[in-house]
Amino acid sequence: MPDAPIRALLFDVFGTVVDWRSGVDREGRSLAERRGIEGVDWAEVADRWRALYQPSMQAVRSGERPFANLDVLHRESIERVVAELGIEGLTASDLDELTLAWHRLDPWPDAVEGLTRLKAHYILATQSNGNIALMVNMAKRAGLPWDLVLGAEVTGHYKPEPECYRRACGLLGLPGEQCMMVAAHPGDLEAARNAAGMRTAYIPRPLEYGDPARHRPPAEGVTFDVTATDLVDLARQLGA
Amino acid sequence: MPDAPIRALLFDVFGTVVDWRSGVDREGRSLAERRGIEGVDWAEVADRWRALYQPSMQAVRSGERPFANLDVLHRESIERVVAELGIEGLTASDLDELTLAWHRLDPWPDAVEGLTRLKAHYILATQSNGNIALMVNMAKRAGLPWDLVLGAEVTGHYKPEPECYRRACGLLGLPGEQCMMVAAHPGDLEAARNAAGMRTAYIPRPLEYGDPARHRPPAEGVTFDVTATDLVDLARQLGA
Repeated sequence: MPDAPIRALLFDVFGTVVDWRSGVDREGRSLAERRGIEGVDWAEVADRWRALYQPSMQAVRSGERPFANLDVLHRESIERVVAELGIEGLTASDLDELTLAWHRLDPWPDAVEGLTRLKAHYILATQSNGNIALMVNMAKRAGLPWDLVLGAEVTGHYKPEPECYRRACGLLGLPGEQCMMVAAHPGDLEAARNAAGMRTAYIPRPLEYGDPARHRPPAEGVTFDVTATDLVDLARQLGA
Repeated sequence: MPDAPIRALLFDVFGTVVDWRSGVDREGRSLAERRGIEGVDWAEVADRWRALYQPSMQAVRSGERPFANLDVLHRESIERVVAELGIEGLTASDLDELTLAWHRLDPWPDAVEGLTRLKAHYILATQSNGNIALMVNMAKRAGLPWDLVLGAEVTGHYKPEPECYRRACGLLGLPGEQCMMVAAHPGDLEAARNAAGMRTAYIPRPLEYGDPARHRPPAEGVTFDVTATDLVDLARQLGA
């Protein structure tokens, strides 16, 4: 571990803290039941929706379009998924509601305990591409004890753009080495380290895509300051 | 009370939630003792420092200078106060440290209990002109259970500019009528109502300027949705 004390932990949220796939699946099935829609694999909808996540943000990152928050991007993407899969019987208002599934995701079983322990020792911030309302609604429902919401809508940039990490540390008034990025995705951690000298904590989430066979481990030779099996283990390793 | 349910409470912080005057006084006396400086009335320093608060922000509001956060403005202002009062024996680094007094203010005695009760029912956000690092450091030290930090550095504007209130509600994904501004200062509440249709809760803090005789009540005829004696009373009135 580094010499400079870590003061703040910045968390990726989708996949690292909450289980987006089962949450979207659950909300889709619930809506389908109310609308009498059958024969849709809502886990597949979740996967396809998530597959449009990076491309949708890329249009903002590249400057092809002005900043649009994740609720807006999610709403556009679900329309595409529904069309691609030929799902019928959902109104525009149903798609508005389904988009809010991302506000109602459940945490992984270790998340609330791990975060609660960490909060006594560190500043806990979200550093997610999710928008503020999404992060707050999710936190209130799930009991995620964030000290504050940072991320795309505060920094004006989507991860993994370097400005996200630099500006987040700057807003906390801390040098990057006193901030630790916590994520299930090696690319997010490498970007945080490269952009701002942040410390890195890798939390593998083998069930993020359902079947553990779909989980991709870090590339060979890539290392992190901490690797923890879950957020309770992270708390233990950080002495919290 | 209005029909639309209130979902979020947005708080003014300096004076409403924390007692800036006694905190600055305490930190000044502590620094003076360590530096062997005598004969300074640190409560007067606090008052003079606070008196420069609005003028310092006005230069940003008017566009005379680009956005600078409150730590920067506070640092400039204390230099003026020290010069005006002829206080000798403080280095630049001492003034940097003294500026952080604003990160270490104590809450009014009712604040933690009131906020903790309110948090179970409402989204709690800071809507302060203080910067993010200041708000977070203060909250961690004092145990203020914010869900998130909004305010000047997130909205890019200093209160009472209308954009502050409009953008804060927008970032929460809520119409103004579902957001309540909570403040000890009638002007802040009136601006929130006028700019965004926010609900208003007035919490008089007669000791904000030390002597209760210095407390200015609202102008005649000005009313608020709620007037509460403190934040515990606000929780009671809002059923929390």
